[in-house]
Amino acid sequence: MARSVRRMSKKSGLSPGTLMHVGEQKEEQVKISVIDYDEGRVEERRIAKVEESFGYLDMDTVTWLNIDGLHQVDIVEKIGGHYGLHPLVMEDILNTRQRPKIEEHETYVVIIIRMLTYEEETKDLDDEQVSLILGSNFVLSFQEREGDIFDPVRERIRHGKGRIRRMGPDYLAYALLDAVVDEYFPTLERLGDRMEALEQELISRPTVATLNELYDLKRDFLVLRKSVWPLREVMNRLERGESPLIKPETEVFLRDVYDHTIQVIDTVEVYRELVSGMLDTYLSSVSNRMNEVMKVLTIIATIFIPLGFIAGLYGMNFVNMPELQSPWGYYVAVSVMAGLALTMVAYFWRRGWL
Amino acid sequence: MARSVRRMSKKSGLSPGTLMHVGEQKEEQVKISVIDYDEGRVEERRIAKVEESFGYLDMDTVTWLNIDGLHQVDIVEKIGGHYGLHPLVMEDILNTRQRPKIEEHETYVVIIIRMLTYEEETKDLDDEQVSLILGSNFVLSFQEREGDIFDPVRERIRHGKGRIRRMGPDYLAYALLDAVVDEYFPTLERLGDRMEALEQELISRPTVATLNELYDLKRDFLVLRKSVWPLREVMNRLERGESPLIKPETEVFLRDVYDHTIQVIDTVEVYRELVSGMLDTYLSSVSNRMNEVMKVLTIIATIFIPLGFIAGLYGMNFVNMPELQSPWGYYVAVSVMAGLALTMVAYFWRRGWL
Amino acid sequence: MARSVRRMSKKSGLSPGTLMHVGEQKEEQVKISVIDYDEGRVEERRIAKVEESFGYLDMDTVTWLNIDGLHQVDIVEKIGGHYGLHPLVMEDILNTRQRPKIEEHETYVVIIIRMLTYEEETKDLDDEQVSLILGSNFVLSFQEREGDIFDPVRERIRHGKGRIRRMGPDYLAYALLDAVVDEYFPTLERLGDRMEALEQELISRPTVATLNELYDLKRDFLVLRKSVWPLREVMNRLERGESPLIKPETEVFLRDVYDHTIQVIDTVEVYRELVSGMLDTYLSSVSNRMNEVMKVLTIIATIFIPLGFIAGLYGMNFVNMPELQSPWGYYVAVSVMAGLALTMVAYFWRRGWL
Amino acid sequence: MARSVRRMSKKSGLSPGTLMHVGEQKEEQVKISVIDYDEGRVEERRIAKVEESFGYLDMDTVTWLNIDGLHQVDIVEKIGGHYGLHPLVMEDILNTRQRPKIEEHETYVVIIIRMLTYEEETKDLDDEQVSLILGSNFVLSFQEREGDIFDPVRERIRHGKGRIRRMGPDYLAYALLDAVVDEYFPTLERLGDRMEALEQELISRPTVATLNELYDLKRDFLVLRKSVWPLREVMNRLERGESPLIKPETEVFLRDVYDHTIQVIDTVEVYRELVSGMLDTYLSSVSNRMNEVMKVLTIIATIFIPLGFIAGLYGMNFVNMPELQSPWGYYVAVSVMAGLALTMVAYFWRRGWL
Amino acid sequence: MARSVRRMSKKSGLSPGTLMHVGEQKEEQVKISVIDYDEGRVEERRIAKVEESFGYLDMDTVTWLNIDGLHQVDIVEKIGGHYGLHPLVMEDILNTRQRPKIEEHETYVVIIIRMLTYEEETKDLDDEQVSLILGSNFVLSFQEREGDIFDPVRERIRHGKGRIRRMGPDYLAYALLDAVVDEYFPTLERLGDRMEALEQELISRPTVATLNELYDLKRDFLVLRKSVWPLREVMNRLERGESPLIKPETEVFLRDVYDHTIQVIDTVEVYRELVSGMLDTYLSSVSNRMNEVMKVLTIIATIFIPLGFIAGLYGMNFVNMPELQSPWGYYVAVSVMAGLALTMVAYFWRRGWL
Repeated sequence: MARSVRRMSKKSGLSPGTLMHVGEQKEEQVKISVIDYDEGRVEERRIAKVEESFGYLDMDTVTWLNIDGLHQVDIVEKIGGHYGLHPLVMEDILNTRQRPKIEEHETYVVIIIRMLTYEEETKDLDDEQVSLILGSNFVLSFQEREGDIFDPVRERIRHGKGRIRRMGPDYLAYALLDAVVDEYFPTLERLGDRMEALEQELISRPTVATLNELYDLKRDFLVLRKSVWPLREVMNRLERGESPLIKPETEVFLRDVYDHTIQVIDTVEVYRELVSGMLDTYLSSVSNRMNEVMKVLTIIATIFIPLGFIAGLYGMNFVNMPELQSPWGYYVAVSVMAGLALTMVAYFWRRGWL
Repeated sequence: MARSVRRMSKKSGLSPGTLMHVGEQKEEQVKISVIDYDEGRVEERRIAKVEESFGYLDMDTVTWLNIDGLHQVDIVEKIGGHYGLHPLVMEDILNTRQRPKIEEHETYVVIIIRMLTYEEETKDLDDEQVSLILGSNFVLSFQEREGDIFDPVRERIRHGKGRIRRMGPDYLAYALLDAVVDEYFPTLERLGDRMEALEQELISRPTVATLNELYDLKRDFLVLRKSVWPLREVMNRLERGESPLIKPETEVFLRDVYDHTIQVIDTVEVYRELVSGMLDTYLSSVSNRMNEVMKVLTIIATIFIPLGFIAGLYGMNFVNMPELQSPWGYYVAVSVMAGLALTMVAYFWRRGWL
Repeated sequence: MARSVRRMSKKSGLSPGTLMHVGEQKEEQVKISVIDYDEGRVEERRIAKVEESFGYLDMDTVTWLNIDGLHQVDIVEKIGGHYGLHPLVMEDILNTRQRPKIEEHETYVVIIIRMLTYEEETKDLDDEQVSLILGSNFVLSFQEREGDIFDPVRERIRHGKGRIRRMGPDYLAYALLDAVVDEYFPTLERLGDRMEALEQELISRPTVATLNELYDLKRDFLVLRKSVWPLREVMNRLERGESPLIKPETEVFLRDVYDHTIQVIDTVEVYRELVSGMLDTYLSSVSNRMNEVMKVLTIIATIFIPLGFIAGLYGMNFVNMPELQSPWGYYVAVSVMAGLALTMVAYFWRRGWL
Repeated sequence: MARSVRRMSKKSGLSPGTLMHVGEQKEEQVKISVIDYDEGRVEERRIAKVEESFGYLDMDTVTWLNIDGLHQVDIVEKIGGHYGLHPLVMEDILNTRQRPKIEEHETYVVIIIRMLTYEEETKDLDDEQVSLILGSNFVLSFQEREGDIFDPVRERIRHGKGRIRRMGPDYLAYALLDAVVDEYFPTLERLGDRMEALEQELISRPTVATLNELYDLKRDFLVLRKSVWPLREVMNRLERGESPLIKPETEVFLRDVYDHTIQVIDTVEVYRELVSGMLDTYLSSVSNRMNEVMKVLTIIATIFIPLGFIAGLYGMNFVNMPELQSPWGYYVAVSVMAGLALTMVAYFWRRGWL
Repeated sequence: MARSVRRMSKKSGLSPGTLMHVGEQKEEQVKISVIDYDEGRVEERRIAKVEESFGYLDMDTVTWLNIDGLHQVDIVEKIGGHYGLHPLVMEDILNTRQRPKIEEHETYVVIIIRMLTYEEETKDLDDEQVSLILGSNFVLSFQEREGDIFDPVRERIRHGKGRIRRMGPDYLAYALLDAVVDEYFPTLERLGDRMEALEQELISRPTVATLNELYDLKRDFLVLRKSVWPLREVMNRLERGESPLIKPETEVFLRDVYDHTIQVIDTVEVYRELVSGMLDTYLSSVSNRMNEVMKVLTIIATIFIPLGFIAGLYGMNFVNMPELQSPWGYYVAVSVMAGLALTMVAYFWRRGWL
């Protein structure tokens, strides 16, 4: 959270449209790949210089230019110049702490969404920005890191599976969005598993570490929520199909992604409620255990303090204490003590403390 | 909850419209039954192959095709092909973790709702998806499991009771929806009974098991809520009668189902508030009992610790302790102790601790 | 609450429009009364058979048919047949667990509201359904029990007080609604008194019984709330005067009832907040008392346990303990004890525990 | 709160428009004053009979009739008759427990708002109804009690300060509304001061009285809130200037009052949040102090109970206890005790309990 | 908070439009600077008398008049007179406790927003009002204090960086708004850092001071929230570009500022939730520590009180106590004690208390 704000504050004061990468700085080479296809043919290339891809723009085919890595500002700049992107759009692509949003410009639509991946080993929720530019015959996609999330889409294009090759760039954009939104489900599944594990721990043996993990989980759901609620607006606006770039036959697919988004939101909200319930369980379990501790203390103290008093009484050194002289005195005293102890135990039994 | 997400995550990466059953896998044969009727006649058949039902589509009569069991994907595929369903619709029918929704296509309306049944022995809330396709002269219904919920509707068709035989497929769809929504009432009744039983337990003798049951109940209401709120949207859109497939004379009936849905929502919300109140009762009851325990401890300790001190005082072995030599010393000491104890008891009485 | 759901679940599976009384079964005779009036004359009759009232329908005068008791289904059936009511409307009248609602049919408007009466002796909130049917020249009113709530309206009709005789059936319907809504105020007043009494108890001497009453009260406000929020929608729709059956000059009166409804809602919401605040007070008062108990225990134990130790020290039987032999030993020991006790008391005083 | 409901319940059953004063009954004479002015002249009179003011109605000047005291129903009745007010409007003026509202009638606008004054000595929040009737050339204002709140407006009219004399009755109505709304600021200021004082008390030395005052404050904010939220609707509707009685040049002033209302709402909501926070502070402070108490008890008991046991051990009277015979026995025992005590103290130190 | 209300209450009763500075009174000279530019040239002057700037109004160039300091009412009055501002607008500029708002007048637009700066040393959130007046060829900006926030904008104008010199006053207004909104990010960053520091403290060693700081932080977020929610409305209305003074090409930039505002709101809301979570952590940590304390007490008391009782038993002085005479008595007693202690320790071990 603090991280995302920190990034923004670096830029404050600069002229709008000043391009600067806001995000993790990396050393690796930016990876650029281009796929150009129509119903009949596919051409797939890994290119070193972004200019190599510019020729495809004049063709009727669908061109998908994918950029993995945003730390080389000049690449985005060149693409923006060639595809006629507004400076603020380029700024948004580079500033990787954006809220999901959709912006309709004259000749293209900008869709910015967030991809959330949960790393099971580190228990980290990785939050990455994916920007899509949908034009009349191209789709540009920008990711912060190289990932395999779009591989199934590439696969489908290569082998002409499904309807992807028959349809336009809007369907391609849909397929990419669908890939990102579908990625939320395994993330939710893993968080759900972790939640269930915590719940087991909570019932069997809660510790302060359990509580801290619970708060971590709560925070993860906050981050998820912050990503999916605006995503819903984005999908809703896309699905209503107001842009001429989105063809009517694609709308039904976008509605499907919209439905998935709603399902993600529903699940996040239910999980949030369950986590809140778990916090209550934790507190009442702590409270219950304190109660148990108190009961043990009370039972022991209540039984033995009076007995100790009687023992102390006959430990007094007064010269004239007739009971002490009686040969049965000791036995009477011990019997009284035993009787008292049994009465106490019976009382606790009746109150349900034993 | 986690279960539903897990199902979704299996599919991620597949091409949209890829048919795959997402739900419990079962061994039994899928049951297909067809009822074809108009005002004059009824024909009811149990068929083995779905193709046997396709002839009815060309007739003017109302055809109701009911499928119990979704694990044979090819059956849904064949029906979809014959009735012209969109691939995404077939996917939604098979993916049994859908949120209730309504989709209006050109020649048919898709209604997906959830049926909730509470099993009293297992204390399980069973959550099943029911999909309805309403066409110009047919209704298709898909259930995950064989059930008896639609039997009264069948009965009414067979014997021509009420207006069902005189009206079209939209009325049939209404009757099926009504049957599903009315099923919520016994479910709520049973949950309400369980809640009342828990309340009794809470007042008489709350344990940690009570608390866990309370959380179970809370979770059940969360599931219910997640099902009925979107159901309300579905019914609202149906009742407004925007689809040409729904005739004006059916709208008043749909409004009735809508009213029932609202009533279910109201009840769920009130139950949720009551369960929250019960959690507070539990906590304050635990707190009260801790208070009781503390009081017993305090009373015993406060009375006997000072007495024990006095006894200890005269158990000291100093050579020169004049009181010890006095023949009345012992009696005076015991009297002082008794007086002290009585003072304490009086003090506790005045404070209302006894 | 559970009661209302139980009623609904009895009906599930029946054909819509099947008439069946859902509510308390009673033995008494249903009471039917008819008042027929225009500006010039009034005719008031108590009738045994509902058919006797049917003649008034063809006259230009305003006819008010009031039915007290719904357990004789055939009476409602006959009225419905004569006045042309839809079967679902008759079902709604008989099913006395409806949510307040308004339905505009072609020739009549159906208004269903709930009357809440608080019985001070039993501390019960009695919840009864009142159904009104407003036609072009008649008003039908259905109550579950005989009551005196409509007596002032009858009185005004009989003596021609106010404008009631000069105006149409819409004004009569308004007058009846006004009577029901005004009944909420004494109910709220009594609940408010009970709340104030509880508050006194809470401050002076809270017990578990107080807490239980508080939860009862909270539940009563939940029931009230469930009745008045939909009532507000009903009144709002009436006041906007969209039905041709409601004349413009009546609208200003309906707006007045609407204002009263808002006032009831405001009060219910404020009461709900106050009851929540009282629950917090209860808990913090319990917590405070626990604190008091703990302080007493701590003071006593902290003073006497060290003293007891010193006494025990000189009760040891070592042969060589020089202090024991000293003639001043005892006095020194007692002085040290007294000094220690005073130090402790001073410490507690400084901390504000005494 | 209960008071306002009680008032309403007195009226239930009466014919609508029956005039009856609902509010505190008073003995004093109702005070009637009339100011008649235009740009050129001002006439101000205190009159005994309301009829004396009726002549001004036919003149072109602006007439402001102010009534302090509502317990003489006939005065309101006469005014209503002369100015053509609807009976329900007169009822609303007299029934001083109204929710703030605005009603547009054909020839006049009715504005009912509430004036809240905080009495610092009694710590009472005084809640009074102010009704304004704005006509084409008059403003009627009704207050429950004589007050000085409108004095600055009178002053401005008398001396022709500002633009008030140049503008119409709508500006006068604005000026009166502005005076009432501005009165909320000192009220909020005083409540804020009280809140700050309580906060000091909460940190330094919280008692049960502090808690009760906190609840009083919370209740005051509830009352404030109940008054200002509907006030906002009133101001919003006025500012949008839909009534022909409100001239465009006055709208900008009404917008200013609207802004003030929003500011009052903002402040009330922030105060409510702060009061909730203070309740939490109180509870956690109580909890902290319990913790302190427990620590003292535990430290003392944990140090001295084991020492006491050792002392008790060597106080046993067995004939054969070799340690007792040793000349160093006593010193060894005392050293062991001291060592044990120091270990304990070190342990507590390390845990941060000392 | 209380401060802002106090300011408002001073003015109550005054005629609207009466100019009076509501805010901190200062001694320093008001600083007036004027920048006049078009694409070709820039003129920048620091002036002593506001009249020196009035000549620029008749030129086609863009004039930016910046006023730092509002305590000299006559300066605002002169500007208002020259630029034709409504008296209420001048009042709003001077009354520095305004809620962010936008007002569209005939020839100019008034934008009032708040600038929040967090002072790290004093831990104070400084809240200052910035008023902008956008006219057809000028922008007026008013600040309470001299600050360096607009320096980057000045820099860009001076050196003709970016598009600022090519565009009109609406772009200048945008640039100033952007500067203020961007200032929120470092503020949020600093608050986030403080929150993280507190969180560390909370886990390691929470004290009452931590709690108080937490409440301070909560209060700061309340203030922030009160500023940014209305700011969002302001930006939303600006971005929709309804005013003719805002040119279409500027709208995309305003949308960018709007997006930043949304991001600020999101962050504030998430921080608020996190702070609430931290309060819960604090309470459960206090509760946990009490539990620890209780356990130590219970373990010690439960082990030693019974042992002490046995020791006391054999410290009794009855003449006939056979065990005392036995030569092994002492060793048996000590063994029994040791056995008892070990049993207790084992019991605690099994319960997980050790």
